[in-house]
Amino acid sequence: MEQKNLKTYQEMSAAERRAELAAQKKLYEQEKAAGYHFDMSRGKPDATQLNLSMDILAQNPYDLIYTRKGTDVRNYGELAGVDEAKELFGEVLGVPMENIIIGGQSSLALMYDNVIKAYVLGVYGGSKPWGRQEANPRFLCPVPGYDRHFRITEEFGIEMISIPMTPQGPDMDLVRQYVESDPAVKGIWCVPKYSNPQGYTYAPETVEAFAALKPAADDFRIFWDNAYYVHGFREQDDYLLNIFDACRKYGSEDMVYEFMSTSKVTFAGAGVAVLAASANNIAFLTRQMSVQTLGYNKINQLRHVRYFRNVDGLRVHMRKQAMYLRPKFDCALAALDRGLSGLGIGTWTNPNGGYFISYDGLPGTARRCFELCAAAGVRLTDAGSCYPYGVDPEDKNIRIAPSYPGTAELYQSMNIFCTCQKIAALETLMDK
Amino acid sequence: MEQKNLKTYQEMSAAERRAELAAQKKLYEQEKAAGYHFDMSRGKPDATQLNLSMDILAQNPYDLIYTRKGTDVRNYGELAGVDEAKELFGEVLGVPMENIIIGGQSSLALMYDNVIKAYVLGVYGGSKPWGRQEANPRFLCPVPGYDRHFRITEEFGIEMISIPMTPQGPDMDLVRQYVESDPAVKGIWCVPKYSNPQGYTYAPETVEAFAALKPAADDFRIFWDNAYYVHGFREQDDYLLNIFDACRKYGSEDMVYEFMSTSKVTFAGAGVAVLAASANNIAFLTRQMSVQTLGYNKINQLRHVRYFRNVDGLRVHMRKQAMYLRPKFDCALAALDRGLSGLGIGTWTNPNGGYFISYDGLPGTARRCFELCAAAGVRLTDAGSCYPYGVDPEDKNIRIAPSYPGTAELYQSMNIFCTCQKIAALETLMDK
Repeated sequence: MEQKNLKTYQEMSAAERRAELAAQKKLYEQEKAAGYHFDMSRGKPDATQLNLSMDILAQNPYDLIYTRKGTDVRNYGELAGVDEAKELFGEVLGVPMENIIIGGQSSLALMYDNVIKAYVLGVYGGSKPWGRQEANPRFLCPVPGYDRHFRITEEFGIEMISIPMTPQGPDMDLVRQYVESDPAVKGIWCVPKYSNPQGYTYAPETVEAFAALKPAADDFRIFWDNAYYVHGFREQDDYLLNIFDACRKYGSEDMVYEFMSTSKVTFAGAGVAVLAASANNIAFLTRQMSVQTLGYNKINQLRHVRYFRNVDGLRVHMRKQAMYLRPKFDCALAALDRGLSGLGIGTWTNPNGGYFISYDGLPGTARRCFELCAAAGVRLTDAGSCYPYGVDPEDKNIRIAPSYPGTAELYQSMNIFCTCQKIAALETLMDK
Repeated sequence: MEQKNLKTYQEMSAAERRAELAAQKKLYEQEKAAGYHFDMSRGKPDATQLNLSMDILAQNPYDLIYTRKGTDVRNYGELAGVDEAKELFGEVLGVPMENIIIGGQSSLALMYDNVIKAYVLGVYGGSKPWGRQEANPRFLCPVPGYDRHFRITEEFGIEMISIPMTPQGPDMDLVRQYVESDPAVKGIWCVPKYSNPQGYTYAPETVEAFAALKPAADDFRIFWDNAYYVHGFREQDDYLLNIFDACRKYGSEDMVYEFMSTSKVTFAGAGVAVLAASANNIAFLTRQMSVQTLGYNKINQLRHVRYFRNVDGLRVHMRKQAMYLRPKFDCALAALDRGLSGLGIGTWTNPNGGYFISYDGLPGTARRCFELCAAAGVRLTDAGSCYPYGVDPEDKNIRIAPSYPGTAELYQSMNIFCTCQKIAALETLMDK
């Protein structure tokens, strides 16, 4: 049986730390010599999860021609999606089907699309496009957060302001202060349920505080990326208050764009993406879309809807996904617990769903740990990438993505990760 | 047997014209009373054409998991498309697979995407984004042309300049004059083969003249929408010179974005879209795409490639499409010939491929004809829509889209169209 760590690294004497570093370095060299190539960099489903959805593709194509109102999905038309898809995903998100647009295969692309259009063409109710105003537009970015959100706003030169995350969601006092005082603040990136990378779910009071915002700008939008809306993998699913229900009380529905996709329900990049918004926004965005395309892939929409049938069918499907995801998280969390607990060199989250674990090490260790892992064949998400401009000011956060490797690979990877964390921490402590 | 028209309407006496108008109006009232609802407004394939592609959807999904290099297409990755799709469509367009990006389901969306990105982010080799320069950007628009092209440039406030079309393509003297003298001219919309709406194919000298352009702007792009690249429906397929081959002589490859899709090969809005461009452009655009999405629907890409196998398979498939399209065109052209030839009130094109016939009536008749048709239950493309801002300066052009109605419907529709043309022409001549 492994010995429990009795002292934190901080409590050790300099000599003890030197001995421990030597021991960990020896272990690291052994691990490195094994010549692994493991990828824990992205929140990708593994093949067993993808196998779960094959029946979607095996449906009789002759049963996938007509919608219930008789539209031939193989032809042009139905710009905002087929009714049954709007209904299903409306049910999932708790909004009427009239408030749904079905987009392409990627919710990220839908978000990009809505940032660039807001920048050039403006949003409903705004007096000018974001990019035509005197002050450079600004976005609030709860951190650590989703790197691809931040890359979108960076691409358009939108200034990003970091907002600290808590287990209840972003620091809402700070959010309110920025949003209500600065008309250049045009948006905020949110992953409200099983947040990327922590796996936190915004508390009802947080959602309520969002709904109650009175933005200084007339064209402020909350980008509510509900990527993990049905992605709980334990018995207890986190509860997320429906933001549109909250907004109704304040008349603030126009402030929210909600996004989701089936990329982590069925096939990554080959499912359907969804936008939910107020009637005013839907009308405005549908007109913009009518210039852009004649419609998205409706055959794929119908394929998904006919397979799930309804929201319960989708939930059953997600319980199957959970059977494969949960052991990965259990494995990763057990490795962290076994390898690092009691050492005083890091903390990590223990989510009920989503795709990530957020690990905070000692300041100044994240980049070093990333490099050590990389040299030993374990690819992590780039250190710093969960922060705007890719810069973690304390250089301490690492996103762990346990879904993609097989369990044996994951076990090895996490052991290597723990060794690298120890080395990086000891080096930092010895510098002092 | 029907009597051949012996006199043009212009040669008729005023009394003869009055009698003819009365006769046509009587006929019109009979046709109207039938209460038809026919749609000739858009270039939509009919159901028999869509039925041709069902085997694409009936493939064994378990054979559609891995690309030839072993990538699982159900997962994230392969941003610019799977190799075999790039290879197939590269072969179709006569460019190496390295010069291909496979986009979503809509080439129109790809074009929109490239206009908006050029506007906000700029293009390869350009010093500033189009939207950040002193002069408002301008686009050349061969007319009559594709309404949805013009709606994109209109959406971004890009000034549109009409360029007359000839059977050999746009008036290249005028194009050259604008492109080479005015740095605000940033692009031109082209449908080089079986043009929309005429069905003209640009002559080799026209393509050569495009390749030889020396734009005043450092960020000028030819939007080469090769929508009907394999859409000949007669024995004789028009020949289009490969623009990239022509550009190579002048070192002007960076000037061209070529687009195509399978919307009128397999399923409208549920196929794949393709962009072909120079190595410089592909590198530049791929980086931009990497911010936007993790990739398009690769399962659908593989489905298409495995079904066609190669460019010959695609051509065989298009001969099947031709079996259904050609009779529609023959029916429409026969109706025009029988109804209107010799009257001196209109001319029309007789294409070897594509989806449209362009009809030019007497000046001042197009809108009237559109309205008469609409009142009799025949929906045409809006009069004027083939011109920038929806305004046909002579109000004479009508786009005929014979593909969608059944042959019997088409026959009735075209008879009504001829009656309406006669009435509109007679009314105009009697005004004088």
